[in-house]
This record gives sequence, structure tokens and C-alpha cells, in this order.
Amino acid sequence: MLAGNPELYWYGTIDTHVRTNGFNHYKTVARKVCDGLVHAEVTTDNGDEIRMIQRMSSEELSLEERDMGICAETTGEPGVIYRLKKYTVAGTSRDEIPADTCRLQRELECALREADSVRREHEDEWERRWQCAGIEIEGDEEAQRAVNFAVYHLLRCPVVGDDRVAICAKGFAGEAYFGHFFWDTEVYMLPFYLYTMPETAKSLVQFRIRTLEGAKKNAQSYGYDGARYPWESSVSGLEQCPNWQYADHEVHVTADVVLGLWHYYCAVQDREFLKLAAPVFVETASYWLERVEKKADGTVNLNGVMGPDEYICMCNNNAYTNYMVRYALERTLEVLDILGSDAGISKPQEWTEEVQAVIDGLKKKEKSHGVIPQCDGFESFEEPEFDKVWRDRSKAFGTFVSQERNYRTKALKQADVLMLPYLFPEHFDQDQIRENYEYYIPYTTHDSSLSSIIHSILCSRIGMNKEAYEFFTKALDIDLDDRKGGAAEGIHIANCGGICQAVLFGFAGMEFAYEKEELVFHPNLPEHWNSVAFRIVWHGIPYRVRITQDEVQTEREEV
Amino acid sequence: MLAGNPELYWYGTIDTHVRTNGFNHYKTVARKVCDGLVHAEVTTDNGDEIRMIQRMSSEELSLEERDMGICAETTGEPGVIYRLKKYTVAGTSRDEIPADTCRLQRELECALREADSVRREHEDEWERRWQCAGIEIEGDEEAQRAVNFAVYHLLRCPVVGDDRVAICAKGFAGEAYFGHFFWDTEVYMLPFYLYTMPETAKSLVQFRIRTLEGAKKNAQSYGYDGARYPWESSVSGLEQCPNWQYADHEVHVTADVVLGLWHYYCAVQDREFLKLAAPVFVETASYWLERVEKKADGTVNLNGVMGPDEYICMCNNNAYTNYMVRYALERTLEVLDILGSDAGISKPQEWTEEVQAVIDGLKKKEKSHGVIPQCDGFESFEEPEFDKVWRDRSKAFGTFVSQERNYRTKALKQADVLMLPYLFPEHFDQDQIRENYEYYIPYTTHDSSLSSIIHSILCSRIGMNKEAYEFFTKALDIDLDDRKGGAAEGIHIANCGGICQAVLFGFAGMEFAYEKEELVFHPNLPEHWNSVAFRIVWHGIPYRVRITQDEVQTEREEV
Repeated sequence: MLAGNPELYWYGTIDTHVRTNGFNHYKTVARKVCDGLVHAEVTTDNGDEIRMIQRMSSEELSLEERDMGICAETTGEPGVIYRLKKYTVAGTSRDEIPADTCRLQRELECALREADSVRREHEDEWERRWQCAGIEIEGDEEAQRAVNFAVYHLLRCPVVGDDRVAICAKGFAGEAYFGHFFWDTEVYMLPFYLYTMPETAKSLVQFRIRTLEGAKKNAQSYGYDGARYPWESSVSGLEQCPNWQYADHEVHVTADVVLGLWHYYCAVQDREFLKLAAPVFVETASYWLERVEKKADGTVNLNGVMGPDEYICMCNNNAYTNYMVRYALERTLEVLDILGSDAGISKPQEWTEEVQAVIDGLKKKEKSHGVIPQCDGFESFEEPEFDKVWRDRSKAFGTFVSQERNYRTKALKQADVLMLPYLFPEHFDQDQIRENYEYYIPYTTHDSSLSSIIHSILCSRIGMNKEAYEFFTKALDIDLDDRKGGAAEGIHIANCGGICQAVLFGFAGMEFAYEKEELVFHPNLPEHWNSVAFRIVWHGIPYRVRITQDEVQTEREEV
Repeated sequence: MLAGNPELYWYGTIDTHVRTNGFNHYKTVARKVCDGLVHAEVTTDNGDEIRMIQRMSSEELSLEERDMGICAETTGEPGVIYRLKKYTVAGTSRDEIPADTCRLQRELECALREADSVRREHEDEWERRWQCAGIEIEGDEEAQRAVNFAVYHLLRCPVVGDDRVAICAKGFAGEAYFGHFFWDTEVYMLPFYLYTMPETAKSLVQFRIRTLEGAKKNAQSYGYDGARYPWESSVSGLEQCPNWQYADHEVHVTADVVLGLWHYYCAVQDREFLKLAAPVFVETASYWLERVEKKADGTVNLNGVMGPDEYICMCNNNAYTNYMVRYALERTLEVLDILGSDAGISKPQEWTEEVQAVIDGLKKKEKSHGVIPQCDGFESFEEPEFDKVWRDRSKAFGTFVSQERNYRTKALKQADVLMLPYLFPEHFDQDQIRENYEYYIPYTTHDSSLSSIIHSILCSRIGMNKEAYEFFTKALDIDLDDRKGGAAEGIHIANCGGICQAVLFGFAGMEFAYEKEELVFHPNLPEHWNSVAFRIVWHGIPYRVRITQDEVQTEREEV
């Protein structure tokens, strides 16, 4: 209603002028109004069909067909309540409900007749999701609200049971990164879904199996055998990243994908799944065999890579990437061992020996104590001169420095070496984690939204509870603090996953299923929290967990 | 004339549908035919005006005005010769002849009346240019023809006396690189002009003085003081390179520019010019002071650079770049010393000391014997596996390998370390040159058109005459061999400059004026050449030089 204007006017229609990042993906558009229904039918440039039908209804107002919509118009009476309801059904050629007019019309009529039950169904589904994945914090209302925000978006954006898509970097709430999929899936989001809604986790890992063909094409386009997962994945697994430095060099994603598959297997203990996933293990291993450099002395180099820290453009032997590749290759041999002839893949003995040689060669370079260099020659990178250059710490360091300068300093965009003790806490002793934390933290800008939350988890693990909570609140602010841009360009869905991980694997101190056979917690609750409670599915069995400052209560859930 | 068709038809007009790399740079276009003249008038998107007037004339045929052109039409008689002449005058708002219709019409009428003298003037100018810069080879007709081709293009493309433009990478004969200017100017073309047509050389070096403001803006945009010349220069000296790896990191161009200015001064001994050039020396030195990293031990690093070899994307302490920067800083102090208060620039004592400290710090890293590493850690780059990957040697190696693979191997696109003994033969003893040649040659693909000719010169200098001639003929083929694409995309004008350099500084063994006070030759003619003859201007004095297998004849030219 326009203020001071007694005329009330509603116009119901379906918007077909949608553009994505300025692109028009609709090849054909047809709209009409007929028998009180608005129809819209489009075909996309992929050949998909989408059909929508909409009805408006009102007991107080008469509705009138107009051009491309339905109109309700009246001279408003003060104090009178006018009710307008809009019902829309949509079907696409990709969905269970096909894009068939008669069928959609029946669905719409059914929805009109049984509007209450449709709403209840919707509410029940949300209730069920919150039951599975809700996190209850006592003693910190602000954190509770922010965690609810993160959980809500994580519950909202996966397409449950559909492995044709994963979750895009903006959680389908913004157009940045063009809806592409990143390592965020395996490293930031998957652990949350795995232990709360394993069926959703399954769609995400199956997405990688489904896109293996694309990954093979990527490998081929770079001149390699095997499979190479893209830094920015399309729905068919092809590389979409427009900047060569990431596309060409941020190869750790291929090992991250393998960790994701292995994590699923360990958490859910699903041998059938492992059989489906086996080709990914083997094909990515074949890629690594060609991608590494084998030296005469038995050591192995992995050169020309970008680690998680995107402020170093290209380096040799990035500790994170080397470690992940070694781990992925070990798991590949383990998977072939577990499955035996069930794998349906037979590799000659020489192949297995070559994989083992690369594992051994990479292992020789790993440091089991002291500071782990982020890459060869990290020490010789220049000091970043933060005091001189980074004049306003409320803004990203990257906005104060040219890429050229940034690429030759030790300034870190995000955790890089520290990703390792986050993913593999059992592999590093606390002293080494602390030593590395202390070395890298002065260089870390947290310019990436993927950084703070990992530091929160790490600090929990090494007993730096105050810092753990500070990093946690920093991460909570990423989408909620308007001064930082808020969610204007979409949700940082990886950070949402990270926030939930910080509660489960940081404060509650739960261990990953690939690290421990048993469900274990080493809690480090923030001191003002009375308790935190959540539900965990471990090896297929649901548990209710409640952790206070004094104890951990774990109870098998009644089914 | 169409075969079998007795009708003859000519249509004279001016084409205003010109596009450059697909872009239309004409803001307005006006055309008309009037009083037997075709008029065309355009304004460009830069605000320049261009006006052209054309007349056709024939004694045998009657001409007729038609729409936008002038037409001659007849039924041809076998054996009859029909003569058509087309006269065009052009003026632009940037030229001496302004874009004024009356003036142009007078010029055209004058040209019509005195067509023979206009033609003679043209022929005299070309005669003069060939007299200045022609190279006569006895005993190698093929080389003579190819060298003539190179000289012709070098005589064709500079805009003599106009320092608003330099010479673009394609010698204004192709649209690749959008007419931008590179280090080609100082390193490949300038030495030819300097000793044959110093007035043309002056326009080229003045172009860099004129674009100092642009270079300052570039420095600022990267967060530095001083001036930073662009990898791809626009007419105003702003960076135009669309690929960040070159734009950001191929910084040696800034030192190359300084060498060019110094070379001009040494060859022409023009103190007035040096005064104009002094700000370039000082401003670029100020840039380097900020760009380098000064270590506590007094050494200096120059990190995050790309050398001439563009197959290594970014490295630390590229030998060529470090050396050039050290040399440029030394010359800066020398220039301030030569000019004294005439420089019109006063820098505090601390600035001079800082420059000296950087010179000393860079010098500490230089190797006066043995193999000079192309950059820090060059040894640890991977072997390029040419045998496996480079299946067809008639094509560039780069077409067989992804950039990602290429960037982490020792494969060289062109001479890099070897640029140093080419530019500074007096600074390296023959053994060291030979040792470096032998180390780098197996890795060098010569994928760049700038590579072969430098190797030819180097081989001449170390007495590898057979290889010198082989590299020379390879370079001659670049624009002349159709199997290699020929000149389809424009002339490789830097290579043309290089070809002439190979004759003068390679086979004839002349030394650069910044290396020697006196005009000196150490010839190494190809064994089947009887002689080579050319004209050289040294310190303003022209000489006729003729070199045979046995002797060097140098004769001051009669003026």
C-alpha cells in the first residue's frame, strides 16, 4: 500500500526476466494467463525445461486476468484486513515432477485443497532437519543465534538426494563464482553433514564420483593421465576458473576430494559406496604419478603448486599439498586392499610399487617436529611490512597491496601449513602444532573467509581457549556483520560449515572418523558456556551428545 | 580485368570501414564525391582528425562520379593499354599538413602538376635511407636478399622526427599486440638505428622521456615511488599488457630503457640529450630502491620477477634483471656526476648512498666465472623431457605443453642469462660465455622470435662460426619462411633489428659505444662471404666500412 493513497493494487505474476551474473540463460520464454492461472515456461541454454503455474486467491477481493498477470485492485478501507494468497508450483525436466502442464495443474489444485497439509509437510521436514543438525548452546545467546544462522543455511542449500549438484561457494544465495564448486565441499562442509545428515553428505561425495569423467578431461587437457579435479567445478566436473594461477596450480583439490570420499567411508562404514568411489582413488593416483617429479635419490618433488594460501602464487613442495597427496595415495592402496577383487579394477604390481615409491619419496620430506616450511624457500620470501602497508586493519590486507608485491612476501591469506593439524590432529604432537601456530600467525591476514574458523579449531585443540573463542566470533561475523559486507553477495557457506565444525570438532573436541575408530570428545568449551548439545551419527548409529564444563554425556538415540 | 569479359571496370574510393583488432576507432565518418575528387573525413576515438582526398585520372578513359567513388568503365580492346592514375593526399590533426580541405586540395593539385618531382622526392628519400643503412654482402645472395628485407622494414616503419610513437612489435604491419611498444625498442632495434640513422634513434629514446609521466603512474599503481616502464607501452607510457604475469613481473624493461638512453648518449655523445634524459635515470632508480629487498647482511634481492625467458613465470634474483638493474643504477650515478648541477636534479647524499648500497648488494651476487644461474633455484627446476613431449621440432615447444607444465621446467623460451654477454661482451671472458652457452643451449627452445639472432651474435663472438650462421639463417626465416607462418600477422620487427645487429655486431664484430670509446671490429665473417660493407655513424662521424676475410677497411665518409 502506498502511504496516503487509498488505492490498493496487487499484481501477481512470474518473473521470467531473470539474469545470472548478467547472462540470460533462457533460450525460449513463453508466458500466458488463462483460467485465472499464470503460466510460465522456459527452456534454458542447457536444454532444460522449467514450467511454473501460479494462482492468486482472495476471499475479500475480486481478481482479474490482465495481460501477463492477475490483478487485485480496490479502494482500501482503513482497518480492513485484505488477504491475498499466492500458490505456485514448479516443475523442471530434471525433477521428479515433470514439466507437464496437466500434472502441474493437478499438483496446484491439490495444494490449494490441502494447503494446510502441504504447509505441515514443509514444517515437518524443517523440524526433522533441525532435529538432526541443530546445535544448542547454553550460556551464549549471541553465539546460539549465529550458529543457528549457519545451521539454517547448511540445511537450506543442499539438494537432498540429488548428486547432480554439490553446494556452490555462495550457498546458492549469491551469484559470485557463478555457482561453481570448490574444495569447500570436502574440507569445510562435508564434515558437518557427515555426522548430522549422512544422506546429504552422500550426495556431495557422489557428485565427485559422477564428475570423474570431467576430471579425466581436465587431466588430459594438461597433458596427464588419470583424473585431476578442477579448482572451480562445473556440474560436469570441468575446470571453470578464469584465472590460470588457481586453475593450473591449486591442485590440492584433487587430494581433498579423495579425503572427502575416505572420510565418508570411515564415518558411514559403507563398503558399497567405496566400490563406487574406487575409480576416483585410482584415477587421481595415476594423475599424481605423472604430476610429481621423481628424483634419482628416491625423493619426490611436487613443483609449481599453489597451496591453500593463495597469496603465494606458485611454489615447490607446498607442505599441505605434498601431505595431502601422500595421504590420498596411501588411502588408494588401502582401498584396493580393502576391496580386493570387489574393486573391479586391476592394476599391475608395478603401478602399486610406483604409488608406494611416491608415498615414500614424499614422506622423506615431511618434518615430524619443529616448524614446517610452507614450501621450498618460504624463509626467503620477503617480510610483509604490515605496519607500513596495512593501514586499516578493519579491511583486508589484500586491498592495500598490489598482487605483485603480495606474491613475494610471507603474507598469508589463510591457514596453509596449519590446515594439516586441523585435518590430522593425531599426526602432530601438541608442541609441534603450537610451534607452527606461533610461527605462522604473525604472517596470517585472514583475508580469506576460510581462515579464522580453522584457527579457532586449532586453538581449541592446543588449549588456547581465549583465542579459539576470538577466532570463532570473527568467523560468526563474516556473514552477520554489515560493516564487513555481510551477506550482500551471498552466504559464505564454507564458513557456515566451519562454524559448526568449530563447535563439534573444536569446542566439543570430537575426533574425525578417519582419525579414530570410536566416537571420542576432548572438550574445551568457552568458559562462559554452560553446555552444548547436538546429535551425531557415528557409523550409522545416532547419538545425543551433551557437553558441560564437567562432563560429556553420550546417549544412543531411540529410533 | 575479368578473364573472358570484354567489359573493363575500375572504381576508385577511400575505404573508411577500417577496423583494428575488430575495434572501430572512428567516431565520425564523412565521405563525398565532388568535382572529380573523393573526400573522406574521420575523427578517431582519441579526437584526432584525418582527412584524405583522392583523384583518379586517365588519358584513355572518361571518368564519372558515382555515389562514393569515381568510376571508369569501357569495353576493352585487345592489345590496348589503359592507364589509370590514383593520387591521394592525407592530412591529420597530428601532422604538419593539417586536416584542412583547402590546403589538402592545393597539395593534391600541386602533386598532380609536379607528379614527377613528388615521385623523385620519394625516391631520393629512399635512396638516402639505403645509403645510410644499407648492408652489402658479397658471396651470399640469399642472405643479401633477406638482410635487405630486414633493412627495408626498419627503414619503413619509424616515424622519423616524431617521438610521440616508437615502433610497435609488428612494425606497424600487423595488429597483434595492438600497436604497443616493448623492450624490443631498446634492445633489438635501437642499436641498428643508433649507428646508421642516429636521428631516428633519437625519436625512439625521446619516446621514453616523453612517456616518463606514464611510467610514474605505473609505479604508483603498484605502490612504489619513482618510475616503472610498462611491459607493453601505450603512447602515453601506461601499462597495456593484459596478462598479469608479464605486466607485473617482467620488470627488466625499466632497466632496458635506461640502457637505451645511455647507449644513445655514448654513441652520439649528446650532452644536451643527457640533460633531458636525466629524470628517467633518477626516477627509475627511485623505483628500484623501493622494489628491491635489502638484507641485513648488505646483500640485495630482487624477487618476484620474470626474466627475458617467459617460460619461467616468476622467480627471485633473475641474473639478467639483477645485472641490468645494477648497471642502470651505476649509470644513474654516472649521469648525475657527468651533468653536475646541469642535471637540474638534486638528490640528498643519503639517496646516492642508498643507490650505491643497492649496486654493491646486487654486485655481491654476481658470478664472474662459471655457469650463472638464471635465477635462485634454477637447478631445482624440472628437466623438460623434450624427447617425450616435443614431437615435432618444426613447431614451437610451447604448443606441445600446457603452461602449467612449462612453468616448472628448465625449458627456456629464449636467451636469458645469455642476453648479458650479448649486451656486455667486455664484462665476461670467452670461457665463461662458452660455459654458459653450453649449459643453457640444451634447454633453449627458441620459441621466441627474439632468441635465435642473439645466439647468432654470441656464437660469432666465441668463434663458433658455423653455429653463428645457422642461427642467423634461422632468424632470416622467421618472416620469410611461409611454413613458419611468414609475415601473415605482421613483421617481427625486433628480429629485423636483430638480423642487422648480427651482421654489424656479430659477423663484423663491431663493439657497442657503451663498451668501447673507439670504433672497433673483431670480424668473424661466415666463411663463404667475400665481404660485407656498410656505413656507420660513430660519435657523429660517418664511416664507410668494408670487411673481407682478411681485413677491415674503415674510411671516413666525405660529407
